[in-house]
Amino acid sequence: MSDLNFSIKGMSENPTKFVAEARNFKIVIDEPPTLGGTDHGANPVEYLLASYAGCLNIMGHLIAGELGFKLDKLEIEMDGNLNPDRLFGKSFTERAGFKNIQVKLKPYAAVTPVLLGKWIKEVESRCPVNDNLLNKTPIEVKVLYPH
Amino acid sequence: MSDLNFSIKGMSENPTKFVAEARNFKIVIDEPPTLGGTDHGANPVEYLLASYAGCLNIMGHLIAGELGFKLDKLEIEMDGNLNPDRLFGKSFTERAGFKNIQVKLKPYAAVTPVLLGKWIKEVESRCPVNDNLLNKTPIEVKVLYPH
Repeated sequence: MSDLNFSIKGMSENPTKFVAEARNFKIVIDEPPTLGGTDHGANPVEYLLASYAGCLNIMGHLIAGELGFKLDKLEIEMDGNLNPDRLFGKSFTERAGFKNIQVKLKPYAAVTPVLLGKWIKEVESRCPVNDNLLNKTPIEVKVLYPH
Repeated sequence: MSDLNFSIKGMSENPTKFVAEARNFKIVIDEPPTLGGTDHGANPVEYLLASYAGCLNIMGHLIAGELGFKLDKLEIEMDGNLNPDRLFGKSFTERAGFKNIQVKLKPYAAVTPVLLGKWIKEVESRCPVNDNLLNKTPIEVKVLYPH
């Protein structure tokens, strides 16, 4: 199959609030007051985790179907730690983003442990967001001179 | 400063639809019908791009303030290409996720090109989501045996 292109565009509404459009969907990103924001939406790293969980859900159902078992529901919990020192410009010894991400998957299905092991291996190998977090991705940033 | 922990949790509502909770916010992730979904929300990789744009917006305003110029607004467009062969299990020659991400930033500010160059360098270096996409992140996945 040929490559698929996905895109978003958006505008700041205030220093912490950004409204992105993805096709016909609006995504409101902000920070809580404790991080200097106006709290009109989840924050960027919470969206990052949600994106990853949504991806694991889709892949989990797709691959359960391929392996011949019914996945009734999938519950996911996810968390990650980051040190805000670099973000706030206080220190550059630590990385800016999540240092690690922990994922707990609770599948509701009648399935053997062996098949479940095969399932999760396949889910991780084929989930796009898992790949983009686990591995490096080239990014090209262009700044258009101010209007 | 000490590490901050961010978390989400959620449940599948159907094979492609996942509803995540981040604090008091609900994030609905789905796929369009063309990708087998029920189209109740943006898809995982669109959320990934939105998360990144939201992060660049926050860092852009924070760092403009540090550098002493006023950023009236920031417009961001972003896109990425991925090949769906691995996702669908058709071929494993390509990676699963975005092969590359293109970002266009349009700052609305009275600022010299030199200061703008300093600004974007700092934004990229300190943006958490930029770090998690550009570099590798350790992920620990636990599967809880079915209920």
